Amino acid sequence: MTASRPGGRAADALRAVRITRHYTCHAEGSVLIEFGATKVLCTASVEERVPPHKKGSGEGWVTAEYGMLPRATHTRSDREAARGKQSGRTQEIQRLIGRSLRAVFDLKLLGERTIQLDCDVIQADGGTRTAAITGAYVAACDAVRWLQAQGKLTASPLKDAVAAISVGIKDGVALLDLEYVEDSACDTDMNVVMTGAGHFVELQGTAEGVVFTRTQVDELLSLADQGIRELLQAQRRALEA
Amino acid sequence: MTASRPGGRAADALRAVRITRHYTCHAEGSVLIEFGATKVLCTASVEERVPPHKKGSGEGWVTAEYGMLPRATHTRSDREAARGKQSGRTQEIQRLIGRSLRAVFDLKLLGERTIQLDCDVIQADGGTRTAAITGAYVAACDAVRWLQAQGKLTASPLKDAVAAISVGIKDGVALLDLEYVEDSACDTDMNVVMTGAGHFVELQGTAEGVVFTRTQVDELLSLADQGIRELLQAQRRALEA
Amino acid sequence: MTASRPGGRAADALRAVRITRHYTCHAEGSVLIEFGATKVLCTASVEERVPPHKKGSGEGWVTAEYGMLPRATHTRSDREAARGKQSGRTQEIQRLIGRSLRAVFDLKLLGERTIQLDCDVIQADGGTRTAAITGAYVAACDAVRWLQAQGKLTASPLKDAVAAISVGIKDGVALLDLEYVEDSACDTDMNVVMTGAGHFVELQGTAEGVVFTRTQVDELLSLADQGIRELLQAQRRALEA
Amino acid sequence: MTASRPGGRAADALRAVRITRHYTCHAEGSVLIEFGATKVLCTASVEERVPPHKKGSGEGWVTAEYGMLPRATHTRSDREAARGKQSGRTQEIQRLIGRSLRAVFDLKLLGERTIQLDCDVIQADGGTRTAAITGAYVAACDAVRWLQAQGKLTASPLKDAVAAISVGIKDGVALLDLEYVEDSACDTDMNVVMTGAGHFVELQGTAEGVVFTRTQVDELLSLADQGIRELLQAQRRALEA
Amino acid sequence: MTASRPGGRAADALRAVRITRHYTCHAEGSVLIEFGATKVLCTASVEERVPPHKKGSGEGWVTAEYGMLPRATHTRSDREAARGKQSGRTQEIQRLIGRSLRAVFDLKLLGERTIQLDCDVIQADGGTRTAAITGAYVAACDAVRWLQAQGKLTASPLKDAVAAISVGIKDGVALLDLEYVEDSACDTDMNVVMTGAGHFVELQGTAEGVVFTRTQVDELLSLADQGIRELLQAQRRALEA
Amino acid sequence: MTASRPGGRAADALRAVRITRHYTCHAEGSVLIEFGATKVLCTASVEERVPPHKKGSGEGWVTAEYGMLPRATHTRSDREAARGKQSGRTQEIQRLIGRSLRAVFDLKLLGERTIQLDCDVIQADGGTRTAAITGAYVAACDAVRWLQAQGKLTASPLKDAVAAISVGIKDGVALLDLEYVEDSACDTDMNVVMTGAGHFVELQGTAEGVVFTRTQVDELLSLADQGIRELLQAQRRALEA
Repeated sequence: MTASRPGGRAADALRAVRITRHYTCHAEGSVLIEFGATKVLCTASVEERVPPHKKGSGEGWVTAEYGMLPRATHTRSDREAARGKQSGRTQEIQRLIGRSLRAVFDLKLLGERTIQLDCDVIQADGGTRTAAITGAYVAACDAVRWLQAQGKLTASPLKDAVAAISVGIKDGVALLDLEYVEDSACDTDMNVVMTGAGHFVELQGTAEGVVFTRTQVDELLSLADQGIRELLQAQRRALEA
Repeated sequence: MTASRPGGRAADALRAVRITRHYTCHAEGSVLIEFGATKVLCTASVEERVPPHKKGSGEGWVTAEYGMLPRATHTRSDREAARGKQSGRTQEIQRLIGRSLRAVFDLKLLGERTIQLDCDVIQADGGTRTAAITGAYVAACDAVRWLQAQGKLTASPLKDAVAAISVGIKDGVALLDLEYVEDSACDTDMNVVMTGAGHFVELQGTAEGVVFTRTQVDELLSLADQGIRELLQAQRRALEA
Repeated sequence: MTASRPGGRAADALRAVRITRHYTCHAEGSVLIEFGATKVLCTASVEERVPPHKKGSGEGWVTAEYGMLPRATHTRSDREAARGKQSGRTQEIQRLIGRSLRAVFDLKLLGERTIQLDCDVIQADGGTRTAAITGAYVAACDAVRWLQAQGKLTASPLKDAVAAISVGIKDGVALLDLEYVEDSACDTDMNVVMTGAGHFVELQGTAEGVVFTRTQVDELLSLADQGIRELLQAQRRALEA
Repeated sequence: MTASRPGGRAADALRAVRITRHYTCHAEGSVLIEFGATKVLCTASVEERVPPHKKGSGEGWVTAEYGMLPRATHTRSDREAARGKQSGRTQEIQRLIGRSLRAVFDLKLLGERTIQLDCDVIQADGGTRTAAITGAYVAACDAVRWLQAQGKLTASPLKDAVAAISVGIKDGVALLDLEYVEDSACDTDMNVVMTGAGHFVELQGTAEGVVFTRTQVDELLSLADQGIRELLQAQRRALEA
Repeated sequence: MTASRPGGRAADALRAVRITRHYTCHAEGSVLIEFGATKVLCTASVEERVPPHKKGSGEGWVTAEYGMLPRATHTRSDREAARGKQSGRTQEIQRLIGRSLRAVFDLKLLGERTIQLDCDVIQADGGTRTAAITGAYVAACDAVRWLQAQGKLTASPLKDAVAAISVGIKDGVALLDLEYVEDSACDTDMNVVMTGAGHFVELQGTAEGVVFTRTQVDELLSLADQGIRELLQAQRRALEA
Repeated sequence: MTASRPGGRAADALRAVRITRHYTCHAEGSVLIEFGATKVLCTASVEERVPPHKKGSGEGWVTAEYGMLPRATHTRSDREAARGKQSGRTQEIQRLIGRSLRAVFDLKLLGERTIQLDCDVIQADGGTRTAAITGAYVAACDAVRWLQAQGKLTASPLKDAVAAISVGIKDGVALLDLEYVEDSACDTDMNVVMTGAGHFVELQGTAEGVVFTRTQVDELLSLADQGIRELLQAQRRALEA
């Protein structure tokens, strides 16, 4: 049944992953990540201040914002800045990215400064939040390296790597890395965020019309685990380049 | 180690669950649900109209909004209406409630009308979103019965029951139905939404500081499954009363 | 003509008044007040800070916010937090509650702290603003007692009690404590706020379609005076319980 | 004690009232009203549409908006358009103006159109809301005359005149038509809206620090009654000019 | 072809310019400026504080806000305060006024204080932004004189005068000081801001349907130069009065 | 003195201009335009509807929105969607882009549909608005070709080409195509928009601290004219590729 995936992709195959560092010139970390036709620009900005709840704590902060260019999608969507507010979906995603990245940061070691991650979708074809997390990690690494090069940090505050992938069930088959046409047609959709050590950071499964079983959860988690290993490798390769 | 839970509760024990139907007089369904000290008022309102994306489809819609009274919490929080926007957390929760309830509705059978669920937290002590989903189902049942009594519906559009519970890991121990002091101290927190048939609707696990393993996921899902069975029974008892 | 009131109530009779203290567990004062089917939860929160215009003045502040659960009313109303702003009516009412309570507070004796009153309508059947003022006074008393028990205050900053009632004219008859069906049908509607000493704090009369005479003002004020005496007694009884 | 009023004004004297019709050229009614140094521009705009709740009713609508130029006051206040919302005070006042004017309109005779009143304070020295109501009535008359001249109306939808004045108690003395320094220092402040026939439309009394008695209410209402008679005469004179 | 202008005005003639100082009583500078039927109230408020980006700089700030009364125009426009935001046009104009005035201020000499200019259109008939700039300069002069009279400034921070005019091309003819009917019908519209020394501060030309040539730019700039000389003279006369 | 430009650029030299069509896959027109380090993604979306003021007119509409990714700039700027409103600068720019493009469109020939241009700055180094206009024209051409290929249009509604450039004066020298360090240091800054026929669409000159003379206007317009000719050629080359 895997023959039915666009481009003849196998059920357990990722789309082509491309990670381009130093994509723009101003940010301390700037990464274009591509999962097939999905393209997300992830920048990491270092700011020598922390939000109120961290002031005087000796700890830093890592947070994220997410956006989508109006015509990143098949049909143009409203510009959130013009509408005057971010949608619930946008807020949900940026909170997820922030939590995922904080899971691998030692905020004490970061010191009282903020790493602000901006994930902006240039082109969307499913999986934008998982691409954003995977790319934001690479951008965060570059920001940490910049802090070290500046002599502002000696030890790295990064405790581990983090990457994310979506998995889903369509017509009873578990699929890795859903692209848009699959995502909108599938029965169950799960986003999984894991560390380099193979542990879970986030797990978000949603039944889209058809509920799912414990056995399917197991199958999806295995598939996600395999995909994330490949993404962690792609991150390492990009960071060694 | 379970001795350490507040009130000497066992690790796999729910707090006292109380479901009071007809709590307020205007709504077609009105339920006060209590998980221990957590109290959420869930009302179901029937509106003879649908949102734009359903107009002319012959299908109905089920949606939810969530709010917390400013002093439902230990420290007063800002009133969202006064601040002029709902927080990301609020939007995330109300989207979750809406998806969970839609999972058990046959929107075709509902016909072109909306069931609007309002879940307002009167008193908070952890687990407000899971209490909200569990209570909203009972309110939705009452709204459906009202539609049937009015002769507006013959067959019930409800395909199954739905309930939700939180589980978490604290000091290595899996705990069922976290109350506030546990929730804020635990390493991992998972919200699970399941149907009467024992299938998953939503699964949201988050590492709060300490990442979690596959084995822990399994343990948490089993615990949630047991808790949700008890909640489904409480719902049935309430609906038969 | 009084036979025409719902439930056969006399023109000069209040609905059943119930005042339940300690209704929720977190607030320093928490009161559910019921005027017949109207139910308002009034909480008083003590905050050890004052708004900018009181900083360094040695004086405290007392303020109020008002809200209505979306389905507190016969037909569901929009959630103000979702719409992104409070209506003119909401702001008018919360300003009235704040002024009414400040009228009986010695802000100097309160010291540089704020008592924040939150009045949330759980169920509406007319008279929500007057119930809110009457209940908020009891919640404020409990907050003051809490401050005294904590040793933060010795002398009470409360100079007097305060309560409120609505009166109106329907078909030429002056009625006390209008419920919703009367309120929406009456010619003139007046909200009166008075102290324990029998003096006026606020007086707001509005002609709804039919203008009113000086004689009618007199009649309404007498009726309100009588009703407020009964409310003051109900407050005293609740505070002695 | 009346010697203490600014300018040696008697306790029961209005400030100089000036009503200038056709103050601006575009509006169907345009009136500059002055109560001493208080200057409010009141325009009445006729719009051939009604708000949703009046559509198809055969009835028209009369509504008002109120604003204050940022430097109409002694100290500059924020521009509401720049802050992005109208204050509670502004909304309270514009709702009061709207209700007051609707009290003298037969909306059936007006037909399905709207008279939109805009009351903008050019210079403030107390009593802006009462000046606004008094001036808005004259502007509304001119709009009605315009409608008649256009042949759009034969019978006038105006049932009576309407005017408003503030009264207050300062150091035990009842004063008519408070100017700013009096208003901010007085113990009790009451705004009274009455018709040409001498009946009440609105009555809003507020204790500013010192509560007030029934006797004082009587005294204030008599004083207001006298002041409003003079304003009604000023309106008539202006309309005959 | 100049015969075709309303009122038989010559192509190179300004409308009647009237500048009334001390128009309102509270502001440090208050000027009503009229360009024919266009009337703009310009107030200058002195505030002893500066915005964040100037704090501690030793320099002051000059800024402007612009508004239009809802019925200043032929057809009533929405009140921006009620809509909850300023239009793009409003923001564009107030930014232009602010830049124009800052061009003639020595912010160092002004000291760490702000001159806030408020330009509110009472009646609109084209050219409101140019009238606003021209009038705001006179109001700013009065504010500076007030600061000098108060002994807060010795040397004047005003380096030069500034005034503005609109010019345009209609049916191939260059016209000075467009009124509304001309503005909405013309092919090209240019707003020019110049100093007393005859230099440019701002130049904003826009093709409205028909593009314009270099020759036309030259013609328009000459016409504007002449008109602005007359306005500068009117300012001087007003300030000497 | 031209030796002082970054990279040794001549005073009358453009930065390297690169125009990449089909940069993203969903939009009907999608162009990445680069002026040196400034990179703007311009998409043109065809929508088969028009805004209210064009409904039933038989005419179409062309409009633009502009945004900047938060870290497109040297220092991160706030995300406008998160702040809840677009800045005055953003609105000014998007209104300029819209007007510029409409100047070369025959809206009658376009028919009742909208071409929505989105100009998003990926990397900023001065001249983002002029790059946006120049790139938006190419995107609009591609959208028109798409409409023709779909058979929805026969004749092209494009009457001419349009391009824009910034010019400025720094230390008395007129410079073409200012990059960021020049822009923030220059005395006068002018944005010029011209058509393929060499006529003006928009002209916006601003004195930044130092006012400018008529001679300088002439010099700047000549320089702009030359630069725009080169840009028009770059557009043609890109469209022929």
